[in-house]
Amino acid sequence: MSDAREAPRYTGVRTFAGLDHVALARANAVGARAAIVGVPFDTATSWRPGARFGPEAIRGASVLLRGWHPVHGVDVLGSGAVLDAGDVAITPGNAQRSSEQVAAALAPLCASGAVPLVLGGDHSVALGELRAQAGAHGPVALVLLDAHADTWEDYYGERLFHGTVIRRAVEEGLLDPRRSLIAGIRGPLYAAEDLEQARALGLELVPIEELRRSPPSAFAARVRERTAAGPVFVGVDIDVADPSAAPGTGTPEVGGLSSGELIDLLRALAGVRVVGFDVVEVSPPYDAPGQITALLAANVAYEMLALTAIAGGGG
Amino acid sequence: MSDAREAPRYTGVRTFAGLDHVALARANAVGARAAIVGVPFDTATSWRPGARFGPEAIRGASVLLRGWHPVHGVDVLGSGAVLDAGDVAITPGNAQRSSEQVAAALAPLCASGAVPLVLGGDHSVALGELRAQAGAHGPVALVLLDAHADTWEDYYGERLFHGTVIRRAVEEGLLDPRRSLIAGIRGPLYAAEDLEQARALGLELVPIEELRRSPPSAFAARVRERTAAGPVFVGVDIDVADPSAAPGTGTPEVGGLSSGELIDLLRALAGVRVVGFDVVEVSPPYDAPGQITALLAANVAYEMLALTAIAGGGG
Amino acid sequence: MSDAREAPRYTGVRTFAGLDHVALARANAVGARAAIVGVPFDTATSWRPGARFGPEAIRGASVLLRGWHPVHGVDVLGSGAVLDAGDVAITPGNAQRSSEQVAAALAPLCASGAVPLVLGGDHSVALGELRAQAGAHGPVALVLLDAHADTWEDYYGERLFHGTVIRRAVEEGLLDPRRSLIAGIRGPLYAAEDLEQARALGLELVPIEELRRSPPSAFAARVRERTAAGPVFVGVDIDVADPSAAPGTGTPEVGGLSSGELIDLLRALAGVRVVGFDVVEVSPPYDAPGQITALLAANVAYEMLALTAIAGGGG
Amino acid sequence: MSDAREAPRYTGVRTFAGLDHVALARANAVGARAAIVGVPFDTATSWRPGARFGPEAIRGASVLLRGWHPVHGVDVLGSGAVLDAGDVAITPGNAQRSSEQVAAALAPLCASGAVPLVLGGDHSVALGELRAQAGAHGPVALVLLDAHADTWEDYYGERLFHGTVIRRAVEEGLLDPRRSLIAGIRGPLYAAEDLEQARALGLELVPIEELRRSPPSAFAARVRERTAAGPVFVGVDIDVADPSAAPGTGTPEVGGLSSGELIDLLRALAGVRVVGFDVVEVSPPYDAPGQITALLAANVAYEMLALTAIAGGGG
Amino acid sequence: MSDAREAPRYTGVRTFAGLDHVALARANAVGARAAIVGVPFDTATSWRPGARFGPEAIRGASVLLRGWHPVHGVDVLGSGAVLDAGDVAITPGNAQRSSEQVAAALAPLCASGAVPLVLGGDHSVALGELRAQAGAHGPVALVLLDAHADTWEDYYGERLFHGTVIRRAVEEGLLDPRRSLIAGIRGPLYAAEDLEQARALGLELVPIEELRRSPPSAFAARVRERTAAGPVFVGVDIDVADPSAAPGTGTPEVGGLSSGELIDLLRALAGVRVVGFDVVEVSPPYDAPGQITALLAANVAYEMLALTAIAGGGG
Amino acid sequence: MSDAREAPRYTGVRTFAGLDHVALARANAVGARAAIVGVPFDTATSWRPGARFGPEAIRGASVLLRGWHPVHGVDVLGSGAVLDAGDVAITPGNAQRSSEQVAAALAPLCASGAVPLVLGGDHSVALGELRAQAGAHGPVALVLLDAHADTWEDYYGERLFHGTVIRRAVEEGLLDPRRSLIAGIRGPLYAAEDLEQARALGLELVPIEELRRSPPSAFAARVRERTAAGPVFVGVDIDVADPSAAPGTGTPEVGGLSSGELIDLLRALAGVRVVGFDVVEVSPPYDAPGQITALLAANVAYEMLALTAIAGGGG
Repeated sequence: MSDAREAPRYTGVRTFAGLDHVALARANAVGARAAIVGVPFDTATSWRPGARFGPEAIRGASVLLRGWHPVHGVDVLGSGAVLDAGDVAITPGNAQRSSEQVAAALAPLCASGAVPLVLGGDHSVALGELRAQAGAHGPVALVLLDAHADTWEDYYGERLFHGTVIRRAVEEGLLDPRRSLIAGIRGPLYAAEDLEQARALGLELVPIEELRRSPPSAFAARVRERTAAGPVFVGVDIDVADPSAAPGTGTPEVGGLSSGELIDLLRALAGVRVVGFDVVEVSPPYDAPGQITALLAANVAYEMLALTAIAGGGG
Repeated sequence: MSDAREAPRYTGVRTFAGLDHVALARANAVGARAAIVGVPFDTATSWRPGARFGPEAIRGASVLLRGWHPVHGVDVLGSGAVLDAGDVAITPGNAQRSSEQVAAALAPLCASGAVPLVLGGDHSVALGELRAQAGAHGPVALVLLDAHADTWEDYYGERLFHGTVIRRAVEEGLLDPRRSLIAGIRGPLYAAEDLEQARALGLELVPIEELRRSPPSAFAARVRERTAAGPVFVGVDIDVADPSAAPGTGTPEVGGLSSGELIDLLRALAGVRVVGFDVVEVSPPYDAPGQITALLAANVAYEMLALTAIAGGGG
Repeated sequence: MSDAREAPRYTGVRTFAGLDHVALARANAVGARAAIVGVPFDTATSWRPGARFGPEAIRGASVLLRGWHPVHGVDVLGSGAVLDAGDVAITPGNAQRSSEQVAAALAPLCASGAVPLVLGGDHSVALGELRAQAGAHGPVALVLLDAHADTWEDYYGERLFHGTVIRRAVEEGLLDPRRSLIAGIRGPLYAAEDLEQARALGLELVPIEELRRSPPSAFAARVRERTAAGPVFVGVDIDVADPSAAPGTGTPEVGGLSSGELIDLLRALAGVRVVGFDVVEVSPPYDAPGQITALLAANVAYEMLALTAIAGGGG
Repeated sequence: MSDAREAPRYTGVRTFAGLDHVALARANAVGARAAIVGVPFDTATSWRPGARFGPEAIRGASVLLRGWHPVHGVDVLGSGAVLDAGDVAITPGNAQRSSEQVAAALAPLCASGAVPLVLGGDHSVALGELRAQAGAHGPVALVLLDAHADTWEDYYGERLFHGTVIRRAVEEGLLDPRRSLIAGIRGPLYAAEDLEQARALGLELVPIEELRRSPPSAFAARVRERTAAGPVFVGVDIDVADPSAAPGTGTPEVGGLSSGELIDLLRALAGVRVVGFDVVEVSPPYDAPGQITALLAANVAYEMLALTAIAGGGG
Repeated sequence: MSDAREAPRYTGVRTFAGLDHVALARANAVGARAAIVGVPFDTATSWRPGARFGPEAIRGASVLLRGWHPVHGVDVLGSGAVLDAGDVAITPGNAQRSSEQVAAALAPLCASGAVPLVLGGDHSVALGELRAQAGAHGPVALVLLDAHADTWEDYYGERLFHGTVIRRAVEEGLLDPRRSLIAGIRGPLYAAEDLEQARALGLELVPIEELRRSPPSAFAARVRERTAAGPVFVGVDIDVADPSAAPGTGTPEVGGLSSGELIDLLRALAGVRVVGFDVVEVSPPYDAPGQITALLAANVAYEMLALTAIAGGGG
Repeated sequence: MSDAREAPRYTGVRTFAGLDHVALARANAVGARAAIVGVPFDTATSWRPGARFGPEAIRGASVLLRGWHPVHGVDVLGSGAVLDAGDVAITPGNAQRSSEQVAAALAPLCASGAVPLVLGGDHSVALGELRAQAGAHGPVALVLLDAHADTWEDYYGERLFHGTVIRRAVEEGLLDPRRSLIAGIRGPLYAAEDLEQARALGLELVPIEELRRSPPSAFAARVRERTAAGPVFVGVDIDVADPSAAPGTGTPEVGGLSSGELIDLLRALAGVRVVGFDVVEVSPPYDAPGQITALLAANVAYEMLALTAIAGGGG
């Protein structure tokens, strides 16, 4: 990893935070604690596309990240414990096949015990991730920060879409809804029963009003109680943040979290046993010129890596 | 109205939230509860122009809005109760004539009992709106969320300008200042007496500091007390929001509301008897590429429509 | 159609050039000479997405177009002869189903004798168009201005993609390659035989160097000779223009036509018997803030409509 | 004027090319050969506003201009011969009054023999300029490079608008149409007779096709013949350039001049006796981030100043 | 200073808030209370450049500022008490020489008792400022709002860089670390000891978490206690604000202050004896099109001027 | 190198055209014909910075480039003959030291016989390149396409700046001015003698007017005659292109080449014995959102690689 005291951190081919690049096919063999994996896929988005360039932009915005996390007091990036495994080769225009490609690509990594951290791509990429996770760990507990529950039945007949991915994952038994929780929900619906149908799947939904009413520690306590001891998958759809903090996303929703609130929620999860992470729905064409959405996503990913460092004794 | 489960909501000629389009001349006859009306006028703006494209951009940003309001528990858009009546044909370069065109265009709608919701345009468009409202209802109570009181005497000799419109409306007897309130005021002035002159008109001014100090329910109580039982006009100048949430506006002012705070203030007004709404001062050229100001304005309009649904038993 | 001498042409819900909006389902019954039809689809694009917003942006950029064409001396838009039929309801994420939706939507229009002018969308939308055309007219002659031949076999296993659409159309017998011509070809290839394979289909390919070497009249003569008397489909992939003139597109290619050169080529086609048109690959997120690509596409569409006016005696 | 070899040319309060700033009221007294004058007015524009920020942007884009013109071999800016007189205080929302303000502000300058070079502002600002010129010199010959003839009767009843300004000037006898010429005309019209009505005023109109067909020297010969020996006013509406070269303008029109073609036409005018210049219709909000339209306008202004240097023996 | 009631405030060559422009070399002689000074330098920035255009953009965004501060109840700009002294001529590519140029340029102003308010430029410009201040007042107390402590030893061997400037100032004895405080610190570090090394210099560091936990009055009390009676220098690195409020900066850091929070902290400092101010790190290329970072910086500068008005009895 | 028929070319960590990445330190050992090398340095730029992000943006814009060059009929990228060697670690703020770093980094590559193709960075990076080239080959012939001769003596006392680099290279004996030629020169100067001083160095200068007057083959003939048989260095400052084709650059100059003209000039150089290339002055912050300048630079680099393939028998 580059040191800005020797050369500018914006020097070199872009990897996440300047980490070493190890191709995904070999990443499971190198004994890393965690691996960054891009999934440049945005076929399954219902409004603004562009998330296919999310991995590129998040890597570009990550160049200033440094190893030491002053709040947790851990070394997040150090000593080869984290690597950038590049992108999964997916199939634009074909969400089903792409989900299979993601699952196949991540399976060896999950089996090796390394924690994959996926940079999306639209939220549909989570299906492949959860297949790989469930293959290694059985049904996982999902902790999702998202403005939308993503539990619709289908979109115009398409069953795998960014707004249906959680329902698909429940149907496939990839996550245990009784141990799962989606927080940050807001925005208009089609009908009164929409959220009830999501709850009927067994999921716990936390509206944004509830999420903001209590401190991060209360959220973390709720997560710990809900997820119990089992393996946890933590996802962040960047649209959980307010459009002011994350304008560059596919379906922005007003009334969301500030960047500080989002980061604080993640920091509160220290100690939860996480087996996988993702941050999705960064759409760079809508993020220019400041690229603050990509910057926020890079920091979200950094906080996720910090959680693996805590778990793994990175301090 | 289009259903994203059947076709993408971004399909088709843009109307607000995909509502049916009924020309303004016929809108009063169709028995709608509320009608969206654009006023693409920006001659009377003192800094950045562009609000003429506000109606186009707000419609474009409204495509994802769905009918069911989960917090109020009402159907906001359903059953033909709301329509998009297109734009008023105004006269660029002539604020006086344009205000007459707006008044004439809205009068039948007001007379029919439908609630007009105007998408501005700069704030000067409110004069025509208030003339139409006062013609139907007598002087109305104004509840205005705005960074500026807009009660200047004139600008470079021009008497109808976006910063003079409230004074003109008071002078014409269109609104009852004793039942009116402007909240969110901030920013530097010309002289110590500037706000006193506004208060001398009888208006109540609520500085942003006061507005933020108390919960939305307290603001709503103040509104209810102030407006009494009479007909109320609710206006939002989008610059009441912070520049981070609403960069695309004519005269942005730092230290404003977050998108969530603005939405919560509107939700707190449930039950107030509103006869007209507007959301003004969205300037798309300064909003690109994320168009978050237009998105916020579309959500402001949606919350306004929800208030009409509550009043009208839309749940 | 609005007259800027009475109201600003940017007033009202956006239709192409302010034309009347008649829903596609009814458009074939109104006896129009030509109909604008949007196809907001961009699943099948190999680099930058965003063309789903092409129809919206082209309509927005078309507001200044007026009826009289001073070079041809015809009334292009007048007397109800042209209408805007809105958008086809397509299926994002499913190019095959979308092509069927496009074909079904356009078939009645083609049967009625009206000339459809499609605003894309990515180039894959042409397959549905050509199916509708071939259904009405038998195999058509294709005159395509495009930087790329779009005759690849497949992309990552996907057979309907914006770079394969011409091959698919030939395979389905929708166009007669012996009467077809693609002009403006440039850019690097995979292998020496790539263009030969396209020519092996029977297509005539005109590299950009050849296209620019001779005057528009020479191009038109070549088109007339090639297409013979049969029905002709004229397509413009906006990437035939130089990135300086059309930055907002999916796969820009340096060394293209200026806006004037492109317009002149279209004007030279006066008298050719055209049964259908499209202009595709406008990607608005990459076009801001000037939106000059959408403006160029709106003018391309205007020139196409002018060709129908000449054929139909619109002068 | 700053010298980049001593300090960066982007240092200091922005004046045109770093020229000394002398307030307009005193500018006529200092004996300058030419004076830059901004007119930040855009009320009278029929599509995209923003030209009020034209003077600011053109000054910002002019910082790299240096004094020596290598083609003409003259010192353009040197020895206090040129100054920046700031902006005219105009009245937004009131084109008539603003035209009077412009005329009054420029009259002393014209009387003093200095050549005003106005940075617009929309094209309506030319009326005030021509009044000042005619007051000093009698009716002038107009040489206008513009995509539009700007000879409409009115817009929505408004008689002074950017598209009516030339008709108004003819009606007021400010310019001699028999010695005037407008070149670069293109784009759709309302009716066949539109251009004939302009010609009926006595103006010579040169369509863009004719302008490009012959070399700059032929254009200059035509100008010399047409304008005879009388005082000439040279105007450039930046939309005479192609949208690729000038995206930041109010009513862009495809098929225009490249930046080099526009500059060459101006250089060819060496020796013509010019008493006033303007460059109008630069709209910065549509020009970001490259600001190439403002850069082109700054260079147009530079070429105009060079013409005064040649006339004045600046070499 | 211009009055928007007479002419638009966007009229004229841009100075800060329309203040009179007095060249820096003469500014010390005119008896002003405070002087705006731009330092257009960005050589010493570690990620995104562009701050060289900070002074231009902040001036451009300041046009709407008016003289009366309604919260403090003072006349901020009036009566010639404040002027715009233009920019310091610095040397791009040479931070050392530039710091000398800044110090030399400001020294007479500091000696005259006027308060300089510098518009950066990157943070390295503070070294020259502090040299001038210390020359006039001896070591000053620093109150810095900044996301970063800027106390690194060097960058790639460069000792004067925007991240080293505070260390250099301490080493040179320009500021008294025991009376200094840096607040708003956040973001990842290289190693656990990084902040300890800054504290070892004697500086007090206030992490963002602490800063937000207590009200502005508590911060102000801490400042008053820490700075004691001595002369104080107040600096704002605009990256102390959140990227949503200040996207246009060199090294944005998530989790920062809202615009209102930043303004409130400055207002709380009323009565502190300040001898110099700066606001740095505004990078306009990353701020377009809304230019909200420049707007925030203009307001920060306005609040700073208000503090001088209070001290000077401007009310 | 990735094949878009198997996976999207936008998949994976960005290298030039998807080439394999071999660290610069090892690149000389792998026997490549040519190597891409980024130099992310922009300290020495006189107006707009940002070229430090040139290498990142050019790599990002290069993803669609394919191996087969249809005009030359050669395989440009194939068989491991070309690699991406990443970036040189330079020192922002220190042009002298950076030039040494560039020279040291490239020397082994030059010695190995591989052709370095540098992606700038501002033009000052050429000094290090030419030192490395001269070290391996003796003084080289320079063929430079540039709007500016870059032969100034100094800028504000700085002797290594982007506008002085050619003078420095001549003074150091790195290039043979008698065999060198700079073409595309235009724009205002300080004084009549400026270009004469450049010519006095022995350089041949070709103004843009001359360059455009004759066909590419004539330019190539002039190059061949001028450079004789010796080793040639070919540089492209992207500002040789017109601002419409290359808005994202540090010092844009109107009246430049179109993208097609620039590409054609490079193609005409087939057979010239080139030992090094660079393409400099791409500034991405001024290029958004279309990034057409980076796209043009990527194609310029591609044409340069094609020249090495011709020389090396790549066909």
